[in-house]
Amino acid sequence: MEVEKIIKEIIKKNDKKILLLIMDGLGGLPEPTTHLTELETAKKPYLDEIARVGMCGLSIPVLPGITPGSGPAHLSLFGYDPVEHKIGRGVLEVLGVGMEMDKNDIAIRGNFATIDENNIVTDRRAGRIPTEQNQKIVQILQEKIKVINGVEIIIKTVKEHRLAILLKGKNLSPDISENDPQKEGLPLRKITPLKKNAEFTAGILNEFLKQAEKILAQQNTKARTILLRGFSGIPDIESFEKKYLLNPVCIASYPMYKGLAKLVGMNVIAGLETIDDEIEILNKVYNDYDFFYLHYKKTDSAGEDGDFNRKVQTIEEFDTKIRGMKNLKFDVICLTGDHSTPSVLKGHSWHPVPIVIVSQNIIPDDVNSFTERACAKGMLGTIPATSIMYILLANALKLEKFGA
Amino acid sequence: MEVEKIIKEIIKKNDKKILLLIMDGLGGLPEPTTHLTELETAKKPYLDEIARVGMCGLSIPVLPGITPGSGPAHLSLFGYDPVEHKIGRGVLEVLGVGMEMDKNDIAIRGNFATIDENNIVTDRRAGRIPTEQNQKIVQILQEKIKVINGVEIIIKTVKEHRLAILLKGKNLSPDISENDPQKEGLPLRKITPLKKNAEFTAGILNEFLKQAEKILAQQNTKARTILLRGFSGIPDIESFEKKYLLNPVCIASYPMYKGLAKLVGMNVIAGLETIDDEIEILNKVYNDYDFFYLHYKKTDSAGEDGDFNRKVQTIEEFDTKIRGMKNLKFDVICLTGDHSTPSVLKGHSWHPVPIVIVSQNIIPDDVNSFTERACAKGMLGTIPATSIMYILLANALKLEKFGA
Repeated sequence: MEVEKIIKEIIKKNDKKILLLIMDGLGGLPEPTTHLTELETAKKPYLDEIARVGMCGLSIPVLPGITPGSGPAHLSLFGYDPVEHKIGRGVLEVLGVGMEMDKNDIAIRGNFATIDENNIVTDRRAGRIPTEQNQKIVQILQEKIKVINGVEIIIKTVKEHRLAILLKGKNLSPDISENDPQKEGLPLRKITPLKKNAEFTAGILNEFLKQAEKILAQQNTKARTILLRGFSGIPDIESFEKKYLLNPVCIASYPMYKGLAKLVGMNVIAGLETIDDEIEILNKVYNDYDFFYLHYKKTDSAGEDGDFNRKVQTIEEFDTKIRGMKNLKFDVICLTGDHSTPSVLKGHSWHPVPIVIVSQNIIPDDVNSFTERACAKGMLGTIPATSIMYILLANALKLEKFGA
Repeated sequence: MEVEKIIKEIIKKNDKKILLLIMDGLGGLPEPTTHLTELETAKKPYLDEIARVGMCGLSIPVLPGITPGSGPAHLSLFGYDPVEHKIGRGVLEVLGVGMEMDKNDIAIRGNFATIDENNIVTDRRAGRIPTEQNQKIVQILQEKIKVINGVEIIIKTVKEHRLAILLKGKNLSPDISENDPQKEGLPLRKITPLKKNAEFTAGILNEFLKQAEKILAQQNTKARTILLRGFSGIPDIESFEKKYLLNPVCIASYPMYKGLAKLVGMNVIAGLETIDDEIEILNKVYNDYDFFYLHYKKTDSAGEDGDFNRKVQTIEEFDTKIRGMKNLKFDVICLTGDHSTPSVLKGHSWHPVPIVIVSQNIIPDDVNSFTERACAKGMLGTIPATSIMYILLANALKLEKFGA
């Protein structure tokens, strides 16, 4: 993108500190009886105060009408065009279970599936076996299969029938076909190379499946094979440090978000479990970084579960907990979400997300409440999420003049 | 750009008149004690009346978060993408001191600098010699050096140690290296061609430096050589007349803006000094053109100086003076700035700029006051500056239907 070239020319380092607070799946929709959204229902005096002193608006995660997954939504927030920079499904699955990926690795999504004696796929999800059964089988598979042809194979349970597989080795390629026939009643396919240099990888995975099927046949389970999909390597993304001359830190408890932050080169704090841990560590590492990405997951989880009241409670929890950072001085604070997850939709949605920016260099608008409807009237207007980083950098006076 | 192709297809000429009023560096930020911006502080009943009858909004000069120089900001206003059309630093310097550039000319920025007997640069700014000394030396240099190898050399003082140089001749090229070592304590570099066809130009400038150094050695000054930078030719830009089928005139008093207007092919009125001159000439040439660009500089100068009260006064001055054009009939009037220059930042900034458009074909909104916060609520919304010209042309009914 042209703008990235401009940023390269005008970016400069200074000692100003930026805090990006992300409430996952923040935006919502009105509850049918009260006609109020989760944000409008929650009592959140501290977030409202941030809105009062800040400049408010709405952020479009990717494009109008487009509902993003966590990957694209976060890339946007971090200032990388998610249409240009694609993250493979395998990579997201692998990051989501907390595996660490390196440059040469290949990530894969897997489904346990049922096949009959003629190799016909009879259940693409192996009857959605319980997660505990998945964990047991994965442990057995991992004990018996560790390396094939010098390539290390790491297997982890996701949940129910889903698993994540990471190949670590040399000369690996994601350019191979799936073994998933996509429909039940059809025979399992062989994995074939789509490019010449992928023969090695296809061979390893066919051997892996042969060994896995032999082991699974000896277990008491509907899982008889693994459908492999989403083969992908780590995307080639310029690091935050290089792109913005920032020294960034990720303060998150969920593996997926730590993984996404690691993709863009953030320093990731390990071992955090709760928002209390996150606030505590924020206080602790305040002097060590100049960009802080703090992620709160619970709003999204409640929205995904369709639990309106719980989502309201999570907003209220965040409002209370976040006060623990009251004495820290950030030059620029941005509070927003990566996307909306309205409880009534039980999933991510395309709706623009409330955003507020606080800095010395904004004009505070007259928005007094951090809600979808109030922020829509804010002075920041409705902006693409990819422009947020530029506005934060500008407010931190880290961007010089473009042209004379 | 795609939109430029569309405009080409649908543009038509008619007798409607458009007035573009530019208050340079218009937008501001709140003053810390009153919490009001310059525009919110100024008494400006006439500008507020324009806002009341017009449709208001905010204009983003280049991109969110990007602070533009005068060149990119004005290209945007004139409807040229400043990311695509770059204006060289030399060109801006040369235009800024009022030189006229033609197609084959090369513009150069220069610094007087101090070198020792071993050709080591000891002061890249020659102790920031006073402007009067600069003027004296430039006069001597210009008297003794007029033409080298058939290329005319024109030298003008900018201020302090800075000067602008224009080469007029044939077969000139900007593809040459600087003689500036960038750091003090390093030897002056030779100017070398970066492309084969630039040998001639490099030779001329090395000869120019040799002659200049000999002359400077005989003066009582710290200026012992000239560091040459920003070599640039005039950008290849389609003229206003061709692009929009307009017969445009520039009414400005500062050389830089007259130069920028000339770059896009506007007719430029010479000899204007004050806003009174500008209004008087606007009345005088009303019948001769169909597009009028009127530029008011003082708002920016006051902002650059960090003088909040003076910026308020300049807004009030413009509010008073502009009434002198009350009896003129324009079909479309647009009042805005090229960028913001908040007094508290003492320089250009990235903040969107208030804009109001008055025409028979708008829906007047309920904005009654020409300020940042009020305009943010206007019906025009927040628009990229590059779209202003299209909206003005549309309001002047100069754009036909696109597609059937």
